[in-house]
Amino acid sequence: MTKKVTITDLAKRANVSVTTVSQILNGKDDRFSEKTVKKVHQLQKEMGYVPDFNAQSLIRRSGRTIGVLVPNINNPFFSHFLRGIESVAMDNGYIPLIFGSNNNQKLESYYLFESIRRAADGMIIASAISDVSYIDNILNQNGIPYLLTDQAPVADGDQVDVNNYHGGELLANYLIQKGHQRVTVVTDQHPTLNLKQRLTGFLDVFRSHGLSIADEQIVETELTKLGGYHATKQALVHNPTAIFALNDEIAIGLYRGIHEAGLRIPDDISIVGYDDIDLTEYVTPTLTTIHQPSFEMGESAAKLILKRIQDRDRPFQSVSLPIELVERESVKNINS
Amino acid sequence: MTKKVTITDLAKRANVSVTTVSQILNGKDDRFSEKTVKKVHQLQKEMGYVPDFNAQSLIRRSGRTIGVLVPNINNPFFSHFLRGIESVAMDNGYIPLIFGSNNNQKLESYYLFESIRRAADGMIIASAISDVSYIDNILNQNGIPYLLTDQAPVADGDQVDVNNYHGGELLANYLIQKGHQRVTVVTDQHPTLNLKQRLTGFLDVFRSHGLSIADEQIVETELTKLGGYHATKQALVHNPTAIFALNDEIAIGLYRGIHEAGLRIPDDISIVGYDDIDLTEYVTPTLTTIHQPSFEMGESAAKLILKRIQDRDRPFQSVSLPIELVERESVKNINS
Repeated sequence: MTKKVTITDLAKRANVSVTTVSQILNGKDDRFSEKTVKKVHQLQKEMGYVPDFNAQSLIRRSGRTIGVLVPNINNPFFSHFLRGIESVAMDNGYIPLIFGSNNNQKLESYYLFESIRRAADGMIIASAISDVSYIDNILNQNGIPYLLTDQAPVADGDQVDVNNYHGGELLANYLIQKGHQRVTVVTDQHPTLNLKQRLTGFLDVFRSHGLSIADEQIVETELTKLGGYHATKQALVHNPTAIFALNDEIAIGLYRGIHEAGLRIPDDISIVGYDDIDLTEYVTPTLTTIHQPSFEMGESAAKLILKRIQDRDRPFQSVSLPIELVERESVKNINS
Repeated sequence: MTKKVTITDLAKRANVSVTTVSQILNGKDDRFSEKTVKKVHQLQKEMGYVPDFNAQSLIRRSGRTIGVLVPNINNPFFSHFLRGIESVAMDNGYIPLIFGSNNNQKLESYYLFESIRRAADGMIIASAISDVSYIDNILNQNGIPYLLTDQAPVADGDQVDVNNYHGGELLANYLIQKGHQRVTVVTDQHPTLNLKQRLTGFLDVFRSHGLSIADEQIVETELTKLGGYHATKQALVHNPTAIFALNDEIAIGLYRGIHEAGLRIPDDISIVGYDDIDLTEYVTPTLTTIHQPSFEMGESAAKLILKRIQDRDRPFQSVSLPIELVERESVKNINS
C-alpha cells in the first residue's frame, strides 16, 4: 500500500525545509522567492499532498463541519435544502456531514452522537422526530450550537422561518374562492410543528367561512408518495370536491390512486399540495401548490449557524422567508 | 458557552478513575462491579459524554469514514444508492461523507481533496466527470482505496457491475417485438461509460435486425427532467413511434414535453426509460423501464470498500447485480 504523502516527502522533493513548505502552503509566501513558491505548489499538485486534517482539527478543536440531519434525502424538498446548506458551507471552507434518518428515531440519535464524536462545529436539524429537549440536552452539554427547522426550539435561538400558518390560509382561501366546500385533508401521522401550523391555518379559514372540516375528513398517512397512494381510498370516502395534501409527495401518490379509482384531476376532483418540488411541473395535470424556498432555507440555516459558531454571544437572529401560492392546473373552478 | 463534556468530568461524577471509565466505555467491563458499570453508562447518557473522535482517529489514523461522491443527490437513483451505502457503513461503525458534485468538475475535485483531508478510509465515486487517471493519481498517492461505478477504472480493482449493455439489448428487443422500428434516443451530452454501454447494446440489437438508428436520431441533453423536457422538440423531429430515454428522469421530462405537444403516451408515442426510480410507478401512464438495484448497488459498493480497507492485499472482487425489464403502460403494441 502507498502511504499518505507527507509534508516531509514534499519538502525533500522540493529541496527546502518543512517549515518553508508549511509557510508557503499556509499562504505566507511573500518571504520566499517566486521560484520556490511555484515549485512547492507544483509539487503539491503532482504528489497529491493534502494537509492532515485530523491533526489540524485537534489543534483547533474544530472539524470545520456542520452536521445536518434530515428525515429523508429522497424527498426533493430536502435535497434542495441540502444543496443550499452545501453551497454556503463550501464558500466558508466548511463541509456538511449529511445524515438521513429515514424517519427512524434510533438512527437520528446515532447520527447525533456521530456528529458530536466527529467534532461538528454546529448542527442543523430538520424535522426531528426525537423529543426536542433530548436533542437540546445532548448538544448543549457538548457546547454545540444548533438550529432546528420545523420544530419549536426549547429556548430562544436563531430561526429560519417560513409562515406555515399563512401557507395553509392561502390554500384554503384559494379553494373556497374556486367553490370548494367539501374538502378532505391528508396529513402525517406524527406531524411536526410546521405541518400542524399549515393545517391550523387551513382549518381556521374554513371555519371563518362557516365551513367546518370534521375530524373524519382528516386522513393520516406517511409523508411519502406511497403514503399518499395508500390514503386515497379513505380520502375519497366523504366524496370531497378537493383534497389538500400536506406535502407534494403525498399529492403525487394521490394522483396515482385517483387515476386508478377511475377519476380525473381536476374534472372529478381537485388537488393542492405543499412545497413546490420540481416534480409538480412535470406531472399531468401540473400541481397547484405552495412554493417553499427550500434552497434559500438551506442557505439561511447555514449562514445563521456559521455566524453562531463564530460568535456564541451574538444576539439571536430570525430570518423569515416568503412563500407563495403557485397556481397550476390541478384545481377546477366549480362555482356554477 | 458550555464546554464539551470530558472523560474527567464523567470520572469525577462517577467517583472512579479515568481509566475505569475508559475501560468500561470500551467494553472491557468484566473487571468492574455491575453497579459501577451501570453508573458509568447511566452518567454517560445523562451528561451526554461523547468520546473525542479526532483524538481517536489521530491515533488510529482513520476517520472510520467513507467518502462518497455522486453527481446529483436530487436523482432518486443516487439517493437510494446512498441509502444502501449508509446502511452497510452504519452496521460497521463507519459513516459516509456524502458529497454531491452537481456535475461540476471543480466541486468534484474540491470534495475529493476534502475527503483526503478528513482522513477518509476509502472512497466510492459514482459517475465521475473528472478524468479517471486524475482521480486515480490523487487517491493512490494518498494510499486511499477507492471504487468507481459507471466509469472504467485505470487499473484492476474491485467492481460493482450491472450489465448496462444487456439493459440496452432488453429494451431494444422489447420495442422491436412491439413493432417499433423508427426510434429516437435521448442521452447525455457527456455520457459516462454505463450510458455508452446501454446505448451500444440498444443500437447493436437494432442493427442485428437490419434496422439502423442514424446519428440524427440520437438527441443529446442533460440527464435531468428539465433536460428531457428541453429535448422533446428535437426528439419528435423524425416522427418516431418510440423514444428510448437513457434514464427515467429524462423520460419524465419527455412526458411533460409530449403532453404539451398535444400527443398522448402511449397512443401516439411510446416511451421507455432506465433506472426504475420510484416515480415511474406514479406517473400516468406508468413507465416501462429497466430496474436497477440502486440500494443493493450501494450496499455492495460499501461492502467491497470496507473489505479493501481492512485488507489491502486481498484479491480483487467483482459483484454483478441483476437487472430486469419492468413492463408497465408506456409502450403500445403497434404490430398490425
